[in-house]
Amino acid sequence: MPYLERDGDVFVLYLGNEGQTDSENRFHPDFIDAFHGLLDEVEASEGPAALVTVATGKFYSNGLDTDWLFGNYDRVHWYLDRVHSMFSRLLAFPMPTVAAINGHAFGAGAMLATSHDFRVMRGDRGYWCLPEVHLGMPFTVAMNALVTERLANQVALDAMTTGRRYGAAEAIAAGIVDEQAEADKVLAAAVTRAAALTANRKPNLPVIKRALHGRALAGLNTPTTPENLAFGA
Amino acid sequence: MPYLERDGDVFVLYLGNEGQTDSENRFHPDFIDAFHGLLDEVEASEGPAALVTVATGKFYSNGLDTDWLFGNYDRVHWYLDRVHSMFSRLLAFPMPTVAAINGHAFGAGAMLATSHDFRVMRGDRGYWCLPEVHLGMPFTVAMNALVTERLANQVALDAMTTGRRYGAAEAIAAGIVDEQAEADKVLAAAVTRAAALTANRKPNLPVIKRALHGRALAGLNTPTTPENLAFGA
Amino acid sequence: MPYLERDGDVFVLYLGNEGQTDSENRFHPDFIDAFHGLLDEVEASEGPAALVTVATGKFYSNGLDTDWLFGNYDRVHWYLDRVHSMFSRLLAFPMPTVAAINGHAFGAGAMLATSHDFRVMRGDRGYWCLPEVHLGMPFTVAMNALVTERLANQVALDAMTTGRRYGAAEAIAAGIVDEQAEADKVLAAAVTRAAALTANRKPNLPVIKRALHGRALAGLNTPTTPENLAFGA
Repeated sequence: MPYLERDGDVFVLYLGNEGQTDSENRFHPDFIDAFHGLLDEVEASEGPAALVTVATGKFYSNGLDTDWLFGNYDRVHWYLDRVHSMFSRLLAFPMPTVAAINGHAFGAGAMLATSHDFRVMRGDRGYWCLPEVHLGMPFTVAMNALVTERLANQVALDAMTTGRRYGAAEAIAAGIVDEQAEADKVLAAAVTRAAALTANRKPNLPVIKRALHGRALAGLNTPTTPENLAFGA
Repeated sequence: MPYLERDGDVFVLYLGNEGQTDSENRFHPDFIDAFHGLLDEVEASEGPAALVTVATGKFYSNGLDTDWLFGNYDRVHWYLDRVHSMFSRLLAFPMPTVAAINGHAFGAGAMLATSHDFRVMRGDRGYWCLPEVHLGMPFTVAMNALVTERLANQVALDAMTTGRRYGAAEAIAAGIVDEQAEADKVLAAAVTRAAALTANRKPNLPVIKRALHGRALAGLNTPTTPENLAFGA
Repeated sequence: MPYLERDGDVFVLYLGNEGQTDSENRFHPDFIDAFHGLLDEVEASEGPAALVTVATGKFYSNGLDTDWLFGNYDRVHWYLDRVHSMFSRLLAFPMPTVAAINGHAFGAGAMLATSHDFRVMRGDRGYWCLPEVHLGMPFTVAMNALVTERLANQVALDAMTTGRRYGAAEAIAAGIVDEQAEADKVLAAAVTRAAALTANRKPNLPVIKRALHGRALAGLNTPTTPENLAFGA
């Protein structure tokens, strides 16, 4: 389960289990509840602040909890909307946000990173990747909106239709990631970037973000239904 | 008239007349019918596949068949919508698509290239260019949607309001084209790129593409009328 | 007050007071009226033409006239819509437009520059900056539309949520500005660029621009109200 630490005015939300270094950090419904609970805690703070998310080990997040999903497929639409709720909350989060991509960010895990204001990625290993095309999956209306509104059209096309794996340098060139750092300096670089922005935590910031991300948020708030999650048969 | 060849799992659709090397490959109504007929044939295939379009000689395509149009101006709206039908079909085509831009791609010919997933362009000669501004023409609602949704806003502005001619290096810098190759290697580079993507020909691919290009397709499916094709008088 | 000169077929609109070199060129209501009056004069010309805007000294424009606004806060919505009218008019102006950014372009002054077709910026000094986040201000619906439609999403996010100051090189890298020049050559570079485009002043140009900027113009024409100018309380 995710947990929270604090580095000065920067809240550091770890996506993995404390003490475990190779979790895939998939989005189990309980994970999502805990994630929102930690964000409640962060929001309840006062004064200058910023948020960094990170994990330890090989993965940032591998996204959907497919094990849980296969056993609960009757709840797939509910589940996907719960996943989307993390993205939409981050997009409009009332303080600066930075993802420290310490390892693989795949599928909904890549989208979680893209829902932050900025991204710092480990330079030597790890990929940002949307593998849905290889898995026979479409994107939900919400996920399509997030990716296509945040990235240049040709970048979204390359990512979404080829399942291309972006290392840090390629992700920066494509505008997916903002900065790279050595493996043991990713978190520090993200915290440094976040710390420089804590003073922007003011009432106007979420107003600016909601307007800036208006179309992405409209898509993310579209409930997933059997009709709009057609699998292209 | 366009014709079809096959290179492994890659269908190669030639825009020109077989054996003729300097055709401008303009979109006569019969050309458009033949183009759709060949795409029907490609779609009727089964298994891994991708599509490359190319021509031989100096031109990829010069776009609208102005000779035919001047003699059939009462059918201009019908004709333009037929041209748009090639763009919208390619945008959502149920397999990967690559344009091998062997020579000039002008006006609707440039838009045809932009309707593919990827573009490889001859490096030493040839331009991608939207000359409408110089010809006193507006863009249709459909064409405007295609260009503005696919390209960055400032790139679309530069292309559409100045008629700038982009050589391969400039087109790559602007995000209009993905790769360049020597003159006699353009087709091979496009086929190589397409061949690497044939396994993505699955039922979810056109679903992904239709969502990804949702706004462009909405524009492309807008019928051209005297009202929305106002010539700015 | 702004005034007009002419360099061949290029109209040069100065944002400052004639003979004064350190005006901040803020948008007093009288300034806006005069600006529109000069654009009327430019539009009344015939034949090939283009427009350059520039100022002298340290500032291009610091944007909103906060002194006037603080004394007339009951007219804030009317005032903001008057400011927006400059942006929307420039976006669809019936001839090529180039901003010669001779110095600081802040807030609505930065937006004025972004409303031109192209921008040439002084290389050694001066910033393009949206300081609203630091001032506790939101963006109007109109301003949000202009910035988010004209710039890449991540660039808009960086500019709007961090108040980042872009020097010329950074502004070019971000796609905010097209070209830089030495301090005493900014105007000449802008005039040269504009002069090369004067032949595009034809009836189809504003038609092309209105379509190309369709979403930005829809936003810019949204009247500012107490409801949509919520200050995020």
